[in-house]
Amino acid sequence: MLRTKEQYIEKLNKMKPNIYIGDQKVGRDDPRLRPGINVLSITFDLAQNPKYKKLATAKSNIIDGEVNRWAHLPQDPYDLMEKQKLIRMGARRAGGCIQRCMGHDAISALSIYTKEVDEDKGTNYHERFLNFMKYYQENDLVGCCAQTDSKGDRIKRPSAQADPDAYVHIVEKREDGIVVSGFKMSVTQAPYADEIFVIPTRALMEDDKDYAVAFVVPGDWEGVKLVTRPVWHRQKDDDNPPPICKTGISDSVVIFDNVFVPNERVFMAGEWEYGRRLALLFADSHRHSYSGCKPAVSDILCGTSMLAAEANNITKVSHVREKLTQFAGAAELAFSAGVAAAVFGKKTKSGTFFPNTIYANVGRKLMGELIYHEFNLLTEMAGGIASTLPFKESFTMDELKEHLDKFIVRNPKIPADLSLKIWNLVEIMSTSGMTAELLVGGVHGGGSPIMEAIALSLEYDFKTRVNVAKYLGGIDKEMDDDVDLETEPWMKLRFDEGDNE
Amino acid sequence: MLRTKEQYIEKLNKMKPNIYIGDQKVGRDDPRLRPGINVLSITFDLAQNPKYKKLATAKSNIIDGEVNRWAHLPQDPYDLMEKQKLIRMGARRAGGCIQRCMGHDAISALSIYTKEVDEDKGTNYHERFLNFMKYYQENDLVGCCAQTDSKGDRIKRPSAQADPDAYVHIVEKREDGIVVSGFKMSVTQAPYADEIFVIPTRALMEDDKDYAVAFVVPGDWEGVKLVTRPVWHRQKDDDNPPPICKTGISDSVVIFDNVFVPNERVFMAGEWEYGRRLALLFADSHRHSYSGCKPAVSDILCGTSMLAAEANNITKVSHVREKLTQFAGAAELAFSAGVAAAVFGKKTKSGTFFPNTIYANVGRKLMGELIYHEFNLLTEMAGGIASTLPFKESFTMDELKEHLDKFIVRNPKIPADLSLKIWNLVEIMSTSGMTAELLVGGVHGGGSPIMEAIALSLEYDFKTRVNVAKYLGGIDKEMDDDVDLETEPWMKLRFDEGDNE
Amino acid sequence: MLRTKEQYIEKLNKMKPNIYIGDQKVGRDDPRLRPGINVLSITFDLAQNPKYKKLATAKSNIIDGEVNRWAHLPQDPYDLMEKQKLIRMGARRAGGCIQRCMGHDAISALSIYTKEVDEDKGTNYHERFLNFMKYYQENDLVGCCAQTDSKGDRIKRPSAQADPDAYVHIVEKREDGIVVSGFKMSVTQAPYADEIFVIPTRALMEDDKDYAVAFVVPGDWEGVKLVTRPVWHRQKDDDNPPPICKTGISDSVVIFDNVFVPNERVFMAGEWEYGRRLALLFADSHRHSYSGCKPAVSDILCGTSMLAAEANNITKVSHVREKLTQFAGAAELAFSAGVAAAVFGKKTKSGTFFPNTIYANVGRKLMGELIYHEFNLLTEMAGGIASTLPFKESFTMDELKEHLDKFIVRNPKIPADLSLKIWNLVEIMSTSGMTAELLVGGVHGGGSPIMEAIALSLEYDFKTRVNVAKYLGGIDKEMDDDVDLETEPWMKLRFDEGDNE
Amino acid sequence: MLRTKEQYIEKLNKMKPNIYIGDQKVGRDDPRLRPGINVLSITFDLAQNPKYKKLATAKSNIIDGEVNRWAHLPQDPYDLMEKQKLIRMGARRAGGCIQRCMGHDAISALSIYTKEVDEDKGTNYHERFLNFMKYYQENDLVGCCAQTDSKGDRIKRPSAQADPDAYVHIVEKREDGIVVSGFKMSVTQAPYADEIFVIPTRALMEDDKDYAVAFVVPGDWEGVKLVTRPVWHRQKDDDNPPPICKTGISDSVVIFDNVFVPNERVFMAGEWEYGRRLALLFADSHRHSYSGCKPAVSDILCGTSMLAAEANNITKVSHVREKLTQFAGAAELAFSAGVAAAVFGKKTKSGTFFPNTIYANVGRKLMGELIYHEFNLLTEMAGGIASTLPFKESFTMDELKEHLDKFIVRNPKIPADLSLKIWNLVEIMSTSGMTAELLVGGVHGGGSPIMEAIALSLEYDFKTRVNVAKYLGGIDKEMDDDVDLETEPWMKLRFDEGDNE
Repeated sequence: MLRTKEQYIEKLNKMKPNIYIGDQKVGRDDPRLRPGINVLSITFDLAQNPKYKKLATAKSNIIDGEVNRWAHLPQDPYDLMEKQKLIRMGARRAGGCIQRCMGHDAISALSIYTKEVDEDKGTNYHERFLNFMKYYQENDLVGCCAQTDSKGDRIKRPSAQADPDAYVHIVEKREDGIVVSGFKMSVTQAPYADEIFVIPTRALMEDDKDYAVAFVVPGDWEGVKLVTRPVWHRQKDDDNPPPICKTGISDSVVIFDNVFVPNERVFMAGEWEYGRRLALLFADSHRHSYSGCKPAVSDILCGTSMLAAEANNITKVSHVREKLTQFAGAAELAFSAGVAAAVFGKKTKSGTFFPNTIYANVGRKLMGELIYHEFNLLTEMAGGIASTLPFKESFTMDELKEHLDKFIVRNPKIPADLSLKIWNLVEIMSTSGMTAELLVGGVHGGGSPIMEAIALSLEYDFKTRVNVAKYLGGIDKEMDDDVDLETEPWMKLRFDEGDNE
Repeated sequence: MLRTKEQYIEKLNKMKPNIYIGDQKVGRDDPRLRPGINVLSITFDLAQNPKYKKLATAKSNIIDGEVNRWAHLPQDPYDLMEKQKLIRMGARRAGGCIQRCMGHDAISALSIYTKEVDEDKGTNYHERFLNFMKYYQENDLVGCCAQTDSKGDRIKRPSAQADPDAYVHIVEKREDGIVVSGFKMSVTQAPYADEIFVIPTRALMEDDKDYAVAFVVPGDWEGVKLVTRPVWHRQKDDDNPPPICKTGISDSVVIFDNVFVPNERVFMAGEWEYGRRLALLFADSHRHSYSGCKPAVSDILCGTSMLAAEANNITKVSHVREKLTQFAGAAELAFSAGVAAAVFGKKTKSGTFFPNTIYANVGRKLMGELIYHEFNLLTEMAGGIASTLPFKESFTMDELKEHLDKFIVRNPKIPADLSLKIWNLVEIMSTSGMTAELLVGGVHGGGSPIMEAIALSLEYDFKTRVNVAKYLGGIDKEMDDDVDLETEPWMKLRFDEGDNE
Repeated sequence: MLRTKEQYIEKLNKMKPNIYIGDQKVGRDDPRLRPGINVLSITFDLAQNPKYKKLATAKSNIIDGEVNRWAHLPQDPYDLMEKQKLIRMGARRAGGCIQRCMGHDAISALSIYTKEVDEDKGTNYHERFLNFMKYYQENDLVGCCAQTDSKGDRIKRPSAQADPDAYVHIVEKREDGIVVSGFKMSVTQAPYADEIFVIPTRALMEDDKDYAVAFVVPGDWEGVKLVTRPVWHRQKDDDNPPPICKTGISDSVVIFDNVFVPNERVFMAGEWEYGRRLALLFADSHRHSYSGCKPAVSDILCGTSMLAAEANNITKVSHVREKLTQFAGAAELAFSAGVAAAVFGKKTKSGTFFPNTIYANVGRKLMGELIYHEFNLLTEMAGGIASTLPFKESFTMDELKEHLDKFIVRNPKIPADLSLKIWNLVEIMSTSGMTAELLVGGVHGGGSPIMEAIALSLEYDFKTRVNVAKYLGGIDKEMDDDVDLETEPWMKLRFDEGDNE
Repeated sequence: MLRTKEQYIEKLNKMKPNIYIGDQKVGRDDPRLRPGINVLSITFDLAQNPKYKKLATAKSNIIDGEVNRWAHLPQDPYDLMEKQKLIRMGARRAGGCIQRCMGHDAISALSIYTKEVDEDKGTNYHERFLNFMKYYQENDLVGCCAQTDSKGDRIKRPSAQADPDAYVHIVEKREDGIVVSGFKMSVTQAPYADEIFVIPTRALMEDDKDYAVAFVVPGDWEGVKLVTRPVWHRQKDDDNPPPICKTGISDSVVIFDNVFVPNERVFMAGEWEYGRRLALLFADSHRHSYSGCKPAVSDILCGTSMLAAEANNITKVSHVREKLTQFAGAAELAFSAGVAAAVFGKKTKSGTFFPNTIYANVGRKLMGELIYHEFNLLTEMAGGIASTLPFKESFTMDELKEHLDKFIVRNPKIPADLSLKIWNLVEIMSTSGMTAELLVGGVHGGGSPIMEAIALSLEYDFKTRVNVAKYLGGIDKEMDDDVDLETEPWMKLRFDEGDNE
């Protein structure tokens, strides 16, 4: 089933209020959640739109018929590339994070992990997961993923924390399920998700086995509290606010306070050896998603910069032209990394196709390193006006209107009202709370550059490079490791020849 | 006279309301102006404080006795270095721009220019200016400087604009003064300045001579309207907000609508040949001021990053330590450039000592290039929490308090309430409207990196370098130009030998 | 036919001496050309090696059977990706530029252009070209490409130059062919190429039609002089030099002095409208080739840095580990761009598959921007020893050997002779003439970053980004251009669906 | 006495041959040492030249009369600034490192340390040192400084090394002196220095006390062997080589093989507590010297880039102009840091004036970080020709001359012979062994960026910045530490008020 956004919202509105914003407890109809819901609505609209249907949906490998691509398990490199495209297209409309990729990356990770753990330990998680997936796909559900624990003292492992709630953990194992407690933080999208996936955030040792827990619960499940910080750009409704003011995001601390999870929704309960594996499956899949959304942010900044340059009548200035190409470089290099991650990806035992982690990491790393610089580029082209423009309301005062309408015009081809719209957009993009969200999220969302550097430091095939140097320096007679065409992802044969497994 | 802040505010409150914020016309007692007034108050407090008095005041060369250093005309390299120090110290307390340097740089520029134009053209501006200075120093006044015209079409000169108001200009010359109209923009501090200095923003041609105009008027002068955008970080008073929430800034569009300026307050009225000179005297002096305030911003970001690292318990991590030294490099290189600008400065005919422009420009340029990167460093060390932390109010709710107080603790040595104060500061510094003010102002305030690149491109002694290359390459037999010890500022003899004139 | 390197060299040795090195005229057996010939030999060896045969050869679309991949016209995205891989693998063995890609890129460009110009103007170049290709593939020939004219005054077009030889041009058109004169410069590999392809270097106007000329001649053709600058790292033969000392490169000025070219070898003779097209077809194809070789250079620098770190016993130091991941980022982002260029490439009318130019350009641009930084990384990890190590011969002197053998050991696990080999490699990579070749070639070979910025500035779909911004800012009601899935390369459907034409 | 260069060389030629280049033992008249001697000669010439005498000499505080500034102990901030100027001026003539600063920095460090250790431990080193200084100044001697030990395993301290010679150490203490053995490396200038100063390279523990040793011996002292690597750009004499080909540098491994040092030349013999102090006194003084020479390297690169741009006729292109200002920024920021280090320096108990270490470090760090980028700028402006230009000799061949003379002309105002000189200079600067020397030395000479980062990490007053943040965040009520005007160097009062002690 492909839901409409109306159906999505209708279901949200039936959920129990368990959301806290500031010092208020609210329901899902709180207007401060609406901007985020509007973003998710884009994902339903695209699947309904005949023009985009082919991209925004996919043929399920689980149920009969078409499903929303966000609920689909990728089966081949194309599915990964289509995901990238869909994210980029959606993020352009959302003016930033499209949010629904979290659920997609969670189901990909769980599908692969459950297959592996079952084979290794004789558990039955994969079947449970596939049963849940049928429900998930048939109802076109939205899932968020709660991965980051609050962690407490970063030097200590979960079981060594003074406060056990620093990591979500199993409090009690019962016949029919488990009881869990603890805090997850920086969880995007939770108040308007149908389901919350919960997975570990790090490698675990045997002592940490109570912290080896993965499951899924509805967003308003008993004992779950969402402490939410919604962000969007407020503008009065009677100003007929532009689309950039209608979308937003939210992050939540999710408090699990002795929450019972029935067995059919539990996918890990003590298998500590798989903590790292599941954490990385989600993280790497999510980093691949960033090769779709970060290029969209570059696209938006590029377009906004061009409007500003046009309003300043400096589009032909040489340094402006050069700066604009920097957006192209940033966006397309990151996008390329996502394509390479797909091309050199791997068909896992579960059937789910998984991106190559080296390429997923180099792409995400680049974007995290460049995001502040990209906003700097916009500021350079826009000029100081972004932070010194009088408030919009001043432009409507009788005493000022005549003056300010003259004041605002720079490029004679752009009249006052259009100029004001442009500078309003520039201001929202470069000086608002959304700016900070894009900057901080651009650095840390899905893993900071330092996390990707660590991933590369552990996974990149440095040995092959040493062998190259040893050969060239006359230390080794032959370039031994290079003879095996399989040593490095880029050495793989054509991915359509079925030898990527 | 050294005023107290109470005296300063008392005078402000007597001024006529000519300020527009949003769609309201307000007086100087509007609470939204208070954060800016608090910043200026710091400049009065420092001069009253016995510990800082020596730095914050100076012996006037115009009136008898001590004056606030902000109202003092620098007489030697030490005065310029003391200005830097005072700005840095004040900006640390203000949490950013100390604002009062504008007036200082305006009087420096006017003192030099009026002397020169009088000698050249037989005008009488310098005497007028010195008379005004007596009043200004005796009353310890605060001046802002309105330099940037709204400019209209950037490709056309002032006299070629469709709308003459794009640049402030003389509408009528009368026996007793001049009448001016037009728009100045991005004027910091105007609503709480006693006086507004007005100077040209660019080089002028003969056709532009109506645009060659400089003068000073009280902030509430007849015909002057201030359309103001105040910025600060709002926090409820009952939260006992920290100092960072009590200071702020404002920028204004200043509308001159047929404003009469009496002769004794006019310092340029048609001398178009001096448009560029006066514009640069202010700009270069102001760029030197940035070698004081930008290091203070680096200091604040450095300290905030260290608190965040401490709260995250990662202060000993190698990349954190390295990142912190980047703040040291940024701050002290820019500060050094200011010192060199003072050391290699010049005693002008007016007696005012003027910073070397090469060094003033390289310092300002560096800081403009680094500001986004410095905020990036803070974000890297703080982590995603800066933009995902629940609102402060949630920490007070009965249902949440117990959970969130545990949630917020990371470093076991830092209790919940202190952690919350730290993250609140991090949030204000890295994700608020003040962040944007510091970022955009950091790039564009006092001239963007591209403006400083242009200044260097015009003023740096490239010819000497070509001569070095010609000599080394065997094209010239001798390194001719290098023999003159006076060719480059750094070649000058000891500045205490009186040969800097 | 797949030649052996012996057959390749045998043919070279039969060619007429027309090479000038310094003030000597030499034949192809001059030892200073040997390092370059050794590089080309790698390309023959790989095709003979059973392990690499599948990669290093391809099924021709022109003649029956397998051909060396370097002489093959790419037919699909896989062919482009295989080219990248082969270049990377070859460049790793060559210790830098594998050189033979030039011929590959020239034949790709000519195949596409000749088809297009024939359809447009009724010429017969494509058939001529295919006839030549049969000869070229059947004999497994090596081609270089002379594109860059000496250009003279960069401000003037070819026909406006004081000296017509600044660009290669047609001096005379005869029944049986054309006569050409002029200079090409920065031509890699010419003295050990079987054939020299000549193509235009820039867009041409009608006045420049004599400069619209493309053809191919053997390397020792009558009237062709090669003024050659060979570069490699000399080490005495009795030192048993390592492989890095046995390979090298050369660049030549090619002088055409009234050279007759028979019709069957002429592919453009006056079709000035196609100057730009052919120039870009080669340039973009060559930029795609750099997404293979530049990652190899990063690989070599990475491996050398790791050896240096090992010799310094600092491999576990945190900043060293981080720096090593920077090589991974550089190499794999550029490689990704090449993959994306292939995936989003285009099947041209000639049947040749052509890389997407946006992705080809962003990849090449990145590597050109990073090359100096990558050498900086090596230097940082190696330390000052790279430029202060005593000469190798000192290590053999009786009076010094005992001391120096102790001196050279840092990591106790690495004995003196191995340490010396490592530092010798570091020295060659970071302080020799090869260093400069890799640095300067890394910036300018195949087009400098500024050229790629210009290409992006002209070709990137900026309009789509403006539309995104206009929609988000409320200027346009709909995001119009985004509805067409074909607007941008990454929006294309699956490339296996045959709709890339 | 001020020696002439002839006197300097005459004395060198009388020294015993103890130099090894490759596998030859040579005297100081070996032509490969001449380029370095030519550099030192510049330092004698400047002091003889009436125009520069005032800068290049100083009034000694030890002997009566004027001494060469290189042999002078700086007494006040001006002396430090004059040193900077003299280094910059000398390095411009040398085309790089002027080398003689090493001796200057060694005597500064020894003067301060000997005074301190005597007061602390009752030794008599300061008097010994001053006696030596009389001899040194009276004879206008050249000293080099051997600081960097070969170090062996970087993880272990000196006394823990498998091979004791990894650090220079005391083998025997005798009545009349000490006997030392071990290796120093990366010692610039040794073969043409009159005296070799030897000082520790690091902090020492009590176990390392045999490694706590400082002394000075003549360059040809019994038991001292210099294994030397000279670098310069060779060009045939009959080509009338340009000055850049006549200067050069050398680095040596200095082998001490049971060398006896008489007491009057020993300045540390077991005082391990002062190892770190003396090592840092030299290092920080030397880093201050870099604020003179590195700007000179920027000057040379700037000038060479301008010549290249002129030859390419692109001087007015916007990106070229912008790039040139980057040299200005680099040079003058580093120079500023040196000025600030002088201004905020300290009069030590010995009377020697010592640069502020924070400013000395930020300046050196910047230049080490930028050096590769600066060469990149030159390459970008010069184009590929730097590494593809035919050898000079080809331009003289009859068969080629006519062609190549036309070939080489780009800017019509620059004839062939001048063009060739320019490209020859570009080639030497950007692709020769000297390039590598400037690059590697630019990173590591006097301490790599990572060493300066460590120095800043230890010495910068981070606590003050935390206090600023604590105040602004409401954690501390007062900004306590800021009230003390002495907390930070830039807070010091006027340096002419004698309160810098």
